[in-house]
Amino acid sequence: MSIVKKDYIRPLDIKNGRIDMGHGAGGRAAMQLIEELFLAAFDNDYLRQGDDGAAFAIPQGERMVMAVDGHVVSPLFFPGGDVGCLSVHGTINDVAMSGARPLYLAASFILEEGFPLADLKRIVESMAAAAREAGVPVITGDTKVVEQGKGDGVFISTTGVGVVPVGVDVSGRNARPGDVLLLSGTIGEHGVAVLSQRESLEFETTIRSDTAALHTLVAAMLQAAPGGVRVLRDPTRGGLATTLNEIARQSGVGMLLQEDAIPVLPQVDAACELLGLDPLYIANEGKLVAACAPEAVEAVLAAMRAHPLGAQAARIGSVVEDPHRFVQMDTRFGGRRVVDWLSGEQLPRIC
Amino acid sequence: MSIVKKDYIRPLDIKNGRIDMGHGAGGRAAMQLIEELFLAAFDNDYLRQGDDGAAFAIPQGERMVMAVDGHVVSPLFFPGGDVGCLSVHGTINDVAMSGARPLYLAASFILEEGFPLADLKRIVESMAAAAREAGVPVITGDTKVVEQGKGDGVFISTTGVGVVPVGVDVSGRNARPGDVLLLSGTIGEHGVAVLSQRESLEFETTIRSDTAALHTLVAAMLQAAPGGVRVLRDPTRGGLATTLNEIARQSGVGMLLQEDAIPVLPQVDAACELLGLDPLYIANEGKLVAACAPEAVEAVLAAMRAHPLGAQAARIGSVVEDPHRFVQMDTRFGGRRVVDWLSGEQLPRIC
Repeated sequence: MSIVKKDYIRPLDIKNGRIDMGHGAGGRAAMQLIEELFLAAFDNDYLRQGDDGAAFAIPQGERMVMAVDGHVVSPLFFPGGDVGCLSVHGTINDVAMSGARPLYLAASFILEEGFPLADLKRIVESMAAAAREAGVPVITGDTKVVEQGKGDGVFISTTGVGVVPVGVDVSGRNARPGDVLLLSGTIGEHGVAVLSQRESLEFETTIRSDTAALHTLVAAMLQAAPGGVRVLRDPTRGGLATTLNEIARQSGVGMLLQEDAIPVLPQVDAACELLGLDPLYIANEGKLVAACAPEAVEAVLAAMRAHPLGAQAARIGSVVEDPHRFVQMDTRFGGRRVVDWLSGEQLPRIC
Repeated sequence: MSIVKKDYIRPLDIKNGRIDMGHGAGGRAAMQLIEELFLAAFDNDYLRQGDDGAAFAIPQGERMVMAVDGHVVSPLFFPGGDVGCLSVHGTINDVAMSGARPLYLAASFILEEGFPLADLKRIVESMAAAAREAGVPVITGDTKVVEQGKGDGVFISTTGVGVVPVGVDVSGRNARPGDVLLLSGTIGEHGVAVLSQRESLEFETTIRSDTAALHTLVAAMLQAAPGGVRVLRDPTRGGLATTLNEIARQSGVGMLLQEDAIPVLPQVDAACELLGLDPLYIANEGKLVAACAPEAVEAVLAAMRAHPLGAQAARIGSVVEDPHRFVQMDTRFGGRRVVDWLSGEQLPRIC
């Protein structure tokens, strides 16, 4: 009988190999890719169940949250990160911005035929390291392959589930006039880092993406004032300006920002001036903005500043009554302007 | 002041419009696409929460299950379905194959610049109809846009969560020698339908995809014999042959099939002969295979046959002891052959 007893003979050639259509066909090649590359990196008992879905214990809490985020960043590798860790951080952050403790992730990979296995390994290992560091395992996944020219290397869609602790009620709908707006740190690094890599721009000092998982920062804020944190959101695509407009719209309020209170790194400011970009509209991947009840602000701000990802946290403005739901800003030069939604695109494929 | 009070002025031009990069930038155009196309179709209170994640009540049961599936089928529309309903059915089925009752879906869309809005609307409405019919709402989503030539119309990754009822333990690891293998119906329709559309083949009778949500069939089987259903799996990519090999490997058993017991539509048989394909390796999207304890078989088979999606259910073989974990088959001609894993690709981008 010619059938081999081992399920496959040669290990994957990670160094020189490339994705081919067979890796997506569900047969032996797909199994080998999953076992030697994905399972080896993520390495947990949930994945080792080997079923089409992964089982987990029913969590205790107020309610659950599910969030999904597709990641199509170009280039795949950029200063401070890559599509792999970004896809973990982005989804953990979406879950955390509902006030939830992220528990588990699911990942869907769409691979382009011809993509180097070495690059895929680097991305998957970065994802696995980010998941491990965050304590949020990737418990199930799926891999598809499309023909060369029908994709762009790797797209990763990551879904997260989490549980909201009892007593926590965080939503973009909850901002009220009088609430204080807090920002966890400097804005603009992620977008500028990706753009500089894409355009091969060389800035005097390298600007690195701020990509990070914010769930422990959120947990510290909620512990400081469980009912006082009303809104949390990470200003990714469209930047701080668009995120604040979304919240203003959802809550039916206006906002008034103080431009000189919004922290921006000098090198980001310089790069934006050079490129004609406004840092307010640039994507961040490791920052959050919060609307807090006035009586909770001191406690929340102290908790943020005690956390490594909130050391530069600042009050940047307040929620005001406004039937037009405008976000306005007192500028450095003493004027006041409307900070509108991003319209069209400023930076495509930034996350 | 030049700012308009409405958030956008003109409605989307669904009839003639196309996806542009701005629809993925997170600003006003993205919001408009989400509200006028996605929210309008899916229309549920979870999505209307408007946050980055959707909240839901903590379910009661034995444990939870999460499953994810990417959908890159080409062409996007095929006889009997399209990528939209397929992406709902596929993920519901992955959740159901763990014995779970599917509860909620999350959807990630990766759109190619230039894709017609009319086609996107058709796909999203097909998804929404499938979700409504199944009673499993899409509660959160994400949309990204890539440049023309960096994608292929629409890719959809769908994640599902569900809850496993108390007393149910279904897994690919649970097959035991002596178990009976049941198949819910005829095989091969989905793959042949997609292939015929792709290659513009015209068969005498049109072969339609069997795409369907199998969770109510699973529920009926589990109700008939909660502890007697040991393994459930939907034979998608790689077909029945590959699925049975996966189960054999996971459970450390062999299998023996009866070729003449495996139902195949005559037109599928004819198309396969013409195309040089083996129906055992062709993807299905509305069929399941089960391993049942011998004492439960009659009850489970009766429950299957009483369900519209299991009317053609049949015993197709049994689980046997085999240290080599071979799947073998007694052929119509009186011989016995090994049914190996699919190696390489038979049909790329079938789901």
